[in-house]
Amino acid sequence: MSHTALKESVLEKVQAAKQAARYLGTLREAEKNAALLAMADSLRTDRDFIFQANEEDVKEARKSGIPEPRIDRLVITEKRLNEMIEGLHQVAGLEDPVREVIETIQRSDGLMIEKVRVPFGVIAMIYESRPNVTVDAAGLALKTGNAVVLRGGKEALRSNMALVDALRKGLANRHIPVGALQLIDRTERESVDILIRAKGLVDLAIPRGGAGLIGRVLENALVPVIETGVGNCHLYVDRAADPDMATAIVLNAKTQRPSVCNAIETLLVHEKIANEWLPAAIDALREHGVQIRGCRKTQAIIGEGNLTPATDEDYAAEFLDLVLAVKIVSSIDEAITHIEKFGTRHSEAIITEDREAAEKFLTQVDAAAVYHNASTRFTDGFQFGFGAEIGISTQKLHARGPMGLRELTSYKYRIRGSGQIRT
Amino acid sequence: MSHTALKESVLEKVQAAKQAARYLGTLREAEKNAALLAMADSLRTDRDFIFQANEEDVKEARKSGIPEPRIDRLVITEKRLNEMIEGLHQVAGLEDPVREVIETIQRSDGLMIEKVRVPFGVIAMIYESRPNVTVDAAGLALKTGNAVVLRGGKEALRSNMALVDALRKGLANRHIPVGALQLIDRTERESVDILIRAKGLVDLAIPRGGAGLIGRVLENALVPVIETGVGNCHLYVDRAADPDMATAIVLNAKTQRPSVCNAIETLLVHEKIANEWLPAAIDALREHGVQIRGCRKTQAIIGEGNLTPATDEDYAAEFLDLVLAVKIVSSIDEAITHIEKFGTRHSEAIITEDREAAEKFLTQVDAAAVYHNASTRFTDGFQFGFGAEIGISTQKLHARGPMGLRELTSYKYRIRGSGQIRT
Repeated sequence: MSHTALKESVLEKVQAAKQAARYLGTLREAEKNAALLAMADSLRTDRDFIFQANEEDVKEARKSGIPEPRIDRLVITEKRLNEMIEGLHQVAGLEDPVREVIETIQRSDGLMIEKVRVPFGVIAMIYESRPNVTVDAAGLALKTGNAVVLRGGKEALRSNMALVDALRKGLANRHIPVGALQLIDRTERESVDILIRAKGLVDLAIPRGGAGLIGRVLENALVPVIETGVGNCHLYVDRAADPDMATAIVLNAKTQRPSVCNAIETLLVHEKIANEWLPAAIDALREHGVQIRGCRKTQAIIGEGNLTPATDEDYAAEFLDLVLAVKIVSSIDEAITHIEKFGTRHSEAIITEDREAAEKFLTQVDAAAVYHNASTRFTDGFQFGFGAEIGISTQKLHARGPMGLRELTSYKYRIRGSGQIRT
Repeated sequence: MSHTALKESVLEKVQAAKQAARYLGTLREAEKNAALLAMADSLRTDRDFIFQANEEDVKEARKSGIPEPRIDRLVITEKRLNEMIEGLHQVAGLEDPVREVIETIQRSDGLMIEKVRVPFGVIAMIYESRPNVTVDAAGLALKTGNAVVLRGGKEALRSNMALVDALRKGLANRHIPVGALQLIDRTERESVDILIRAKGLVDLAIPRGGAGLIGRVLENALVPVIETGVGNCHLYVDRAADPDMATAIVLNAKTQRPSVCNAIETLLVHEKIANEWLPAAIDALREHGVQIRGCRKTQAIIGEGNLTPATDEDYAAEFLDLVLAVKIVSSIDEAITHIEKFGTRHSEAIITEDREAAEKFLTQVDAAAVYHNASTRFTDGFQFGFGAEIGISTQKLHARGPMGLRELTSYKYRIRGSGQIRT
């Protein structure tokens, strides 16, 4: 496809989304909820077609040698489809944030200024191979009155087409313009660039995936972007830590689900507690299958031969696996400085019984979620009680940490007068 | 200067700002207020030096043929310096938004999640020739615990250096690290690019100026940006408008201060009221020195020879001058569609006694501020009661419309536990 034809094909969908967006902003909650349930019904009705499309994707992915963990993310099992359907039901049950009056300013001249929550308009989602993102994003966007343009991974295209086809039937059944839900079916990387440069049409782009995907989007976007997901999280065990609590939390934060962004990647240990606490903690981690990469001081304690040395590359890595870097620090300041240098501003925790040290850590560590005496694994829209999650923001503009429905809205000032002019 | 040397010179300042930022976030309100007053005192003490530097800038600007309106923006008069000083006093009097607990979530397992307001960290301001922005930005950043890196227009460099020098003396007098306030003294355009691509160091960039400046920043930035200021605003006079109110408001919105972003640039008139209302309204506008550019239907009413025809270019223009495009529309929908096509999402107004039409306009027009029966000139942080304004956002991410102190903050989740792990 020529560049011009590709551009036309992408922008046509974005324009259709924008047209639908104006109408979506006026929908009442009951209409949106009915459509969400109809979308869920359609997924159920079209299940065979969806499984078939997914099987073709999986077969093709295997043929082109895509590694098994990525194929696992691609597969739509019976259970996963049911979870997608259940997810739409859950979103229908959440409170609609649109039209909330956030603040009222009454001027002495009678002018009434209301700050009111509104949809963004058109949201572009750029993601990788998980087809559940397709359904999640469609549901959350509709609930918040946004049109959405989806650009999923190449290897999931057939699955996404089948899912979107079903979801649009649900919309149509409830007389919602199907323009509200768009899927970019072009697999050229350039189609992403066209989407994220469509200023005036796309109000927000949310990349969801690895550091490579997010970096490319930031590099090329002209529309506002929310960075999500990359989590190089740390647990700092202070000199005044309760040793048993520290062990329980490091095991949980590293091993309960190592492949997710809120799992820890580096353990920082105060030198005053390291001799006493670290050997048993490392034994426990190893029992859970964790490979340790340690700094020199860690090696000195554990025995050099027993440990892979940790490099700066390890400290910078988001392993997403049963691998943990361990570094002994001589002060809380060194821990904070290490986190500032290597952290991705996601989730950071301190274990200590020293209240002052805890407050210092909570205040000075710059991250979406800072924890005292708890596992980083709680950074999650469901755990925070949002009822839904579109991603976890690691930037500071607009939304930070787990993003639920409210984070998918903007606001406007609605001002009512009786002829007021400025003098 | 070589690219490498320029990059080093800019990044050195950004790094110094980042280092200061960690400390600024811990400052108490009283300390920040004392420093703001000390900054104001320094401006007073250094006034002669500031005026002298500014005179040199103005002389140089005249020599290089910079047009008079831009030179006028550059001049620091006695009155303007006093306003800058007064501005710092006002900011000291405003409430500090930092550390506000926005929300508390208590989980059944005892985990206590607090959403707390925090500074961004390092803010980059990119602006043109007005030196008052230097002082405003320095004051608002300090009050919100942010470090700020300023990059003003080339022609104001000597003035900005003198101002920043004085402001830093004020900081030093109150033992605040002067790293908190940085001025990029390189005039190469590339220095802006280095600043807005300093990911991990700069948390937010705010360009303030014309469409050209803002477009360049969006094109090149890797850090989050808030778009500000470009205002192509409309007044729509509905068929059910009160004619006298409509005249009073169009005059105010166009002529009270035509050079600002919340002044209107296009008047849309419903055809059912145009014959009766428009001729007298245009006479009144002309009496105030306004040049009219009209659509065909306007020409038919006013007389073809009496009117410059309006083109799409006129509809897209932010005149910032006593020029007004006039278009007659056959419905409120046509008005809304015109605004969607040409507006910059800043401020839009409808004049009508028809409540339903008003609600439709307020809901469907996508802009930071939507008005019913009032002038667009109220879109302003001071008019909204914020007590300060760093700019007017025309995007939907994070902040929309006038940005005061709160809009210069982010939030983090501060979570306190007693050993909670995720099961």
